[in-house]
Amino acid sequence: MAKAITSREENYSEWYLDIVKKANLAANSAVRGCMVIKPNGFAIWERMQRQLDDMFKETGHVNAYFPLFIPKSFLSREAEHVEGFAKECAVVTHHRLMNDPNGGGVVVDPSAKLEEELIVRPTSETIIWHTFRDWITSYRDLPLLINQWANVVRWELRTRLFLRTSEFLWQEGHTAHATAEEALEEALKIQEVYATFAEEYMAMPVLRGVKTANERFAGAIDTYTIEALMQDGKALQAGTSHNLGQNFAKAFDVKFSNAENQEEYVWASSWGVSTRLVGGLIMTHSDDEGLVLPPKMAPVQVVIVPIPKPSEELNTKAKELMQELKARGIRVTYDDDDKQRPGFKFAENELKGIPIRLGLGKRDLDKGTIEVARRDEKTKESQPLDGIVDHVANLLEEIQQNLFDRAVRFREENSTHVDTFEEFQAAIDRDIPGFVYAHWDGTTETELKIKELTKATIRCIPNDRVEETGSCILSGKPSAGKVVFAKAY
Amino acid sequence: MAKAITSREENYSEWYLDIVKKANLAANSAVRGCMVIKPNGFAIWERMQRQLDDMFKETGHVNAYFPLFIPKSFLSREAEHVEGFAKECAVVTHHRLMNDPNGGGVVVDPSAKLEEELIVRPTSETIIWHTFRDWITSYRDLPLLINQWANVVRWELRTRLFLRTSEFLWQEGHTAHATAEEALEEALKIQEVYATFAEEYMAMPVLRGVKTANERFAGAIDTYTIEALMQDGKALQAGTSHNLGQNFAKAFDVKFSNAENQEEYVWASSWGVSTRLVGGLIMTHSDDEGLVLPPKMAPVQVVIVPIPKPSEELNTKAKELMQELKARGIRVTYDDDDKQRPGFKFAENELKGIPIRLGLGKRDLDKGTIEVARRDEKTKESQPLDGIVDHVANLLEEIQQNLFDRAVRFREENSTHVDTFEEFQAAIDRDIPGFVYAHWDGTTETELKIKELTKATIRCIPNDRVEETGSCILSGKPSAGKVVFAKAY
Repeated sequence: MAKAITSREENYSEWYLDIVKKANLAANSAVRGCMVIKPNGFAIWERMQRQLDDMFKETGHVNAYFPLFIPKSFLSREAEHVEGFAKECAVVTHHRLMNDPNGGGVVVDPSAKLEEELIVRPTSETIIWHTFRDWITSYRDLPLLINQWANVVRWELRTRLFLRTSEFLWQEGHTAHATAEEALEEALKIQEVYATFAEEYMAMPVLRGVKTANERFAGAIDTYTIEALMQDGKALQAGTSHNLGQNFAKAFDVKFSNAENQEEYVWASSWGVSTRLVGGLIMTHSDDEGLVLPPKMAPVQVVIVPIPKPSEELNTKAKELMQELKARGIRVTYDDDDKQRPGFKFAENELKGIPIRLGLGKRDLDKGTIEVARRDEKTKESQPLDGIVDHVANLLEEIQQNLFDRAVRFREENSTHVDTFEEFQAAIDRDIPGFVYAHWDGTTETELKIKELTKATIRCIPNDRVEETGSCILSGKPSAGKVVFAKAY
Repeated sequence: MAKAITSREENYSEWYLDIVKKANLAANSAVRGCMVIKPNGFAIWERMQRQLDDMFKETGHVNAYFPLFIPKSFLSREAEHVEGFAKECAVVTHHRLMNDPNGGGVVVDPSAKLEEELIVRPTSETIIWHTFRDWITSYRDLPLLINQWANVVRWELRTRLFLRTSEFLWQEGHTAHATAEEALEEALKIQEVYATFAEEYMAMPVLRGVKTANERFAGAIDTYTIEALMQDGKALQAGTSHNLGQNFAKAFDVKFSNAENQEEYVWASSWGVSTRLVGGLIMTHSDDEGLVLPPKMAPVQVVIVPIPKPSEELNTKAKELMQELKARGIRVTYDDDDKQRPGFKFAENELKGIPIRLGLGKRDLDKGTIEVARRDEKTKESQPLDGIVDHVANLLEEIQQNLFDRAVRFREENSTHVDTFEEFQAAIDRDIPGFVYAHWDGTTETELKIKELTKATIRCIPNDRVEETGSCILSGKPSAGKVVFAKAY
């Protein structure tokens, strides 16, 4: 068996990478900062995609596809936007290679230089708003509720599998509306869709809040976020939804005639979640034995292991059981490898995060029982075979809920309210800093100063924050309520 | 109402583009050769994806994801491969933009030049085989059956929406095997999956065959193809599956130890279909009134139109009917716009290719009937409301079959067998040239000469070709059986 996983206590970063590697989720590629998503990892992303896509469609959105490339001049149209993305982007300058006349192999053909450089999309607001100009004339064309599943590239210096990579997969929603209110409503609706997905499917509790001006998406009026807490006490921004106001409509001159036949600029939102969610899922639930997956996100929910090894009798029973579980909509496999012993298989299946293991032994079978092991709590018990499908179905729901409850408890235990900078510093300096609620004077200056002193950033101003008069932990100036600080990924 | 569609007879190319445009399927973008796939077009591609993905999974394949970028040196490793793709590719040379110190806006930052240029993948054999080197050690790791859904870029000079674009969406399968036989078997199995998909889902009959050496994928030993015939008598290569032998394993040094513990190079296949299929679907079935979609590929299968306009009574009945149809798994919408007259709606729904239209009128309702119109044959009839769901379900199947049968008939009527070059020339020069079966001496020289003289290419040597002695239509040299020529997209 492969070398054990580094424990979280020993080195959390190594623990994370060990799980990604040993559970065969992803790997670094030959291209700096780009990852290969391996089948086990991609299967998780596929489940996320399918569920989110259903939720987007239920809320009236349709999918479309826009070009990978963005003309350089488009990026520049929105001043903050270009500022945000120009410094780390992949630039296409030529469209042909040739054989080096000096025998140096294949080289760029200098005669095939593009008139205008193309940027590999870091996000698609610019190319999409350029397109929306052709699609929108009148209020009857609105709202326009579009989503795209795509790859994007941001030339990140420090990368980490799933959490931050130069190329990543995501969905980006881009919507156009007739009023400021509708654009805001859409941005908030999607924040809620994201939060529901995170909590009900990923079993990952999230704070819903709005970003400060400093942490806003480049070109947005407001950025709404969902923030999760990882087991090392650092925050993960898990999804954002932006109210873009009329910024992009103005940059790309997209107007519509309203019901009174007056021309107005269109109002917009954009929003996205990415393969980063896979990293968040791993870090929320997994343990020192490997991946732990909530049943709704698990590509395989149940594995049947023959004990001590496959036999005609056990194979027959396993097949029968699989058929019944499948009929109930449960994703099940049979580990019929006859070369490995059960102990090895148990460890392998734990590493992969399969929520339930059914140990099928001859002796148990004769007694009419089967061994049921839970991945989340590492418990096992003998269960009557009679009624086992119901038991497994209920247990999957219980595990899903247990993982969510556990993560909520962890977050509660690691959320602190402080009133002074000393308390703040002490909280942020703990091994598991967690979410720290503190008063802030509302200025970017103070926010940046706190970041410089402590490395903590404001994750969000919570949607449900309690309005209360207080003094900023740094400047002492008045504050209307606490905001959430944390160290973050 | 918008200007009518150009008729096929008047100008087939314009007819095609009119349909793509007026049915809101796709549009040219601001980036040369790249298209925007609009929601109506993307919905068709989504149906294709979902079905193909299911078929790939049923045949044991899993999805993964590999980087968008390919280091320039990788492309060069397989000599034929680089020859095939280097001349039309997007090259990334820099990773940052900057403000022009001379005030010329945003420019490429010369200090951010990449050490090695990156090519936007035109296909992923090279990066994948580089990766497979880490995944394969022993025969126990084989077969490896991987698929990827991705965007690829080939810098095409002449583009046409869906049929040939610089960026397109596709799936690319990449498999690794322990024996030459297994790699060949896989390539043939996928050819059959593609053919089944084309015929049973797209209702598009295809010839199954193998490409000549000259038409082979760059780096393959053999390329298997499915070839469809469009209504203008030109062939469309709709999907290809390649037996790569050990070419890429050798180029990337991928070996495995076999059961006898001897090291061997791995055997490979690769295969793909793309958004080009949407173009094929349009051109196979559509008519001068607009898009015609086979029910299995139609995002909307049935539209209910209230006659003459929505009313409480008609809305109630429509909702009830929709519920029943949906319960039967039928995709149905209600056209409840109260601004447009039925005639306008009929034309719009015909343009969109919705297979069945149900006209729901008050008078019919009182009589217990409903008007059922078929898009494929442009017929309509009154049907009892009682049992209408069964009738619609059966009719959808009938339409699916009718479209396939019609396309088969068209292909038969436009397939010619010739024995002399004069006959060949005459056949190829017809308004609808179709598939022309002729003897060929097996040399690339003759193949290219025929292409030069007639613009016809060999589409394939059919899998089921009749072995018969004959003389090549050009050289007179012996031939073992006829091959299929056509003008092609």
